[in-house]
Amino acid sequence: MSAALTIAIAGLGTVGEGVLRVLARHGDDIAARIGRPIAIAGVSARSRRKERAVDVSVFDWYDDPVALAASPGIDVFVELIGGEDGVAKAAVEAALTRGVHVVTANKALLAHHGAALAAMAEKGGSALMFEAAVAGGIPIVKALRESLAANTFSRVYGILNGTCNYILTTMERDGSDFADVLAEAQRLGYAEADPGFDVGGIDTAHKLALLTSLAFGTRVDFASVYVEGIANITAADIEAAADFGYRIKLLGVAQRTDSGIEQRVHPTLVPRGSAIAEVSDAFNAVVVEGDFVGEVMLFGRGAGAEPTASAVVGDIIDVARGDTPPPFGRPTKTLAPYEPAGMRAHEGGYYVGLVVLDRPGAMAAIAGRMADQGISLDSIRQRSGSHLRAGVKPGPVPVTLITHETTEEAVRAALEQIERDGHIVGRAQMIRIEPT
Amino acid sequence: MSAALTIAIAGLGTVGEGVLRVLARHGDDIAARIGRPIAIAGVSARSRRKERAVDVSVFDWYDDPVALAASPGIDVFVELIGGEDGVAKAAVEAALTRGVHVVTANKALLAHHGAALAAMAEKGGSALMFEAAVAGGIPIVKALRESLAANTFSRVYGILNGTCNYILTTMERDGSDFADVLAEAQRLGYAEADPGFDVGGIDTAHKLALLTSLAFGTRVDFASVYVEGIANITAADIEAAADFGYRIKLLGVAQRTDSGIEQRVHPTLVPRGSAIAEVSDAFNAVVVEGDFVGEVMLFGRGAGAEPTASAVVGDIIDVARGDTPPPFGRPTKTLAPYEPAGMRAHEGGYYVGLVVLDRPGAMAAIAGRMADQGISLDSIRQRSGSHLRAGVKPGPVPVTLITHETTEEAVRAALEQIERDGHIVGRAQMIRIEPT
Repeated sequence: MSAALTIAIAGLGTVGEGVLRVLARHGDDIAARIGRPIAIAGVSARSRRKERAVDVSVFDWYDDPVALAASPGIDVFVELIGGEDGVAKAAVEAALTRGVHVVTANKALLAHHGAALAAMAEKGGSALMFEAAVAGGIPIVKALRESLAANTFSRVYGILNGTCNYILTTMERDGSDFADVLAEAQRLGYAEADPGFDVGGIDTAHKLALLTSLAFGTRVDFASVYVEGIANITAADIEAAADFGYRIKLLGVAQRTDSGIEQRVHPTLVPRGSAIAEVSDAFNAVVVEGDFVGEVMLFGRGAGAEPTASAVVGDIIDVARGDTPPPFGRPTKTLAPYEPAGMRAHEGGYYVGLVVLDRPGAMAAIAGRMADQGISLDSIRQRSGSHLRAGVKPGPVPVTLITHETTEEAVRAALEQIERDGHIVGRAQMIRIEPT
Repeated sequence: MSAALTIAIAGLGTVGEGVLRVLARHGDDIAARIGRPIAIAGVSARSRRKERAVDVSVFDWYDDPVALAASPGIDVFVELIGGEDGVAKAAVEAALTRGVHVVTANKALLAHHGAALAAMAEKGGSALMFEAAVAGGIPIVKALRESLAANTFSRVYGILNGTCNYILTTMERDGSDFADVLAEAQRLGYAEADPGFDVGGIDTAHKLALLTSLAFGTRVDFASVYVEGIANITAADIEAAADFGYRIKLLGVAQRTDSGIEQRVHPTLVPRGSAIAEVSDAFNAVVVEGDFVGEVMLFGRGAGAEPTASAVVGDIIDVARGDTPPPFGRPTKTLAPYEPAGMRAHEGGYYVGLVVLDRPGAMAAIAGRMADQGISLDSIRQRSGSHLRAGVKPGPVPVTLITHETTEEAVRAALEQIERDGHIVGRAQMIRIEPT
């Protein structure tokens, strides 16, 4: 058996504890598999005295993760602290500049600094592995970086945030509204007290930025991701979408178009019965479309201590075997600058929800504004019935439209005019339709 | 840029041509990705003059693939000849004994000789890569071998043969019988003229034997796989299963049980709405259940020139990067002997189809034989109505039973008794139910 691979673990939250559990339970089998044991040289976390499910007193303790990363004799620094800057970044940099391999689950750090850190890793001859940063236990990073490297990709999309998918699934199942489901999810511990990163789409955007780089060979460019969260999706939207044969999912989509590469995170109508539409609760799924492989989908648990720990230890095993690929699958200096395609040029179908005042000519005016922009309608749904009941005064009526393929530019222009015309109550709802 | 990786390709059928197309279209991008070009040192196939979609006259031609494998200066021998013995085996052995890496799509060869060839590869210091041998473009081999290596697996199962899945999907959609759909599939070129390997389950068993080794760390043991094909599944079975909320799929299942590891290929009832039940037409899917990662599913095209070529070239890229893992993910000498669990000990629910003679006491006798074996029934379905029509003499009636969990031993014993009692016409149908 060869010399041990010595690792240092910074961050002992649920994922860090999960990694310790994997190594405690399967350490011997892993050593037999790779021909060398994995030794934990030291650990670091915010509080040494916090009660933990795993006994960490047997490991060398470091209060400062940067000191741990810089301590001598470390082969791999495992960063499970989180956060796009601060101590996580400093510790990863300390490791990489010393030629120490890094395994991380930190999507925010890589989304913001992935290109610079990859260059630093390459210069120091170290690996920068991050399977756990995207879709937890699902091996999508390695699939794009290695297994499917023979392909050119046209599109990569997925459900990348379990909290959002849980909320949307529950809203659909119970017919309940976003705020109620979110509150319940927070009570049960499924959603953070500050849910902005999840429901606002930022967490999905972090992961998407990494997938884009892996799939298209471009430098990570999180700032260019178009992001819309799910907070303004209503139970009525979900019901109307179902009526048209769709489900609403928060997708991250990276897509090559004539004008560049789209990176977008937003609620999306996907056809019921398609594989992605059937992904429910906290599960994640990623679909890649390659010119040779066709469509491949990977599905599983996208978060949680144990699936994420599975991914972290998978990366450690690769490093132990001496497999240290370039972070984004190709030499970092060959990564092309990301050329964003503007959202206004986006082409696709749209779901439009309007609450229309019940007066003569309202629908005609609305349809006219759509026609002015060259938008043709696939379906219209109007649900009311209130005027059929005796003594009920006609009131505003919810109207839902599904457009044929058009551009975002055209839809936005039409909706601005419609809002200005004053035939509707409040703002128009607009949700993109994603072909699957 | 480093020196070229020189490869030799033996077998220029659809997959071989697909590999040439990948390298022609993406060779430059792949070279930039891995820092070295891939050069084709020579090719071999049965007929030099056969008309091909790709011009092969630019490559050195070898009539004998063994001579090609043994020719000097070859880094990687790509075996796309097929067949469990004969020239494919001789050529692979010629490469491995010379320390030449092998990339192959040959599931039959590896199912029969995987353990011996892996040992040979290890001795010679060469890689033996076979992503393309299981589920075409779906990267399940690498996922089990590397990405998910932190897990212990309880079960791996999948739809591994596109022809069978196409036939079953079409039978369900059209309500047609096996023989008619098979004939149509042969006419369209979706099924081989000799369909025994596909519809008999042998092809699925070849692939399953490889997945078992990867998942459970055991020596490949194809001879121990229990195999039943789909030829005796009827349109009536599919309809009755649908009525109970199931679809019928040909699954390969490897599962750890108290008495050993089950390796079984047979038609299976899977609950409608489960991910595996929704895999239709010629698509493949593999589900793995790991103790940390939970359930992960990979879905995509399991055959065809282009998806399979994607997998072959993915393996070549790994070798070019210097990543040459042990063939089954751990040193071959540490692979444990496969300990088969006998099929009679298999535990699960069963679908039983009987054509019962319409006479007093028949159903009571049948139910009694089930009870004698301790089998309890979940559902019973009897469809006839003929005796309600005036002038129609009562005839045999199709009866379908779904059992609660029991053992194969018990079901077989009960059905033997039921057949012997003479209350039914013909043989009993028995299809296992797989929880998903």
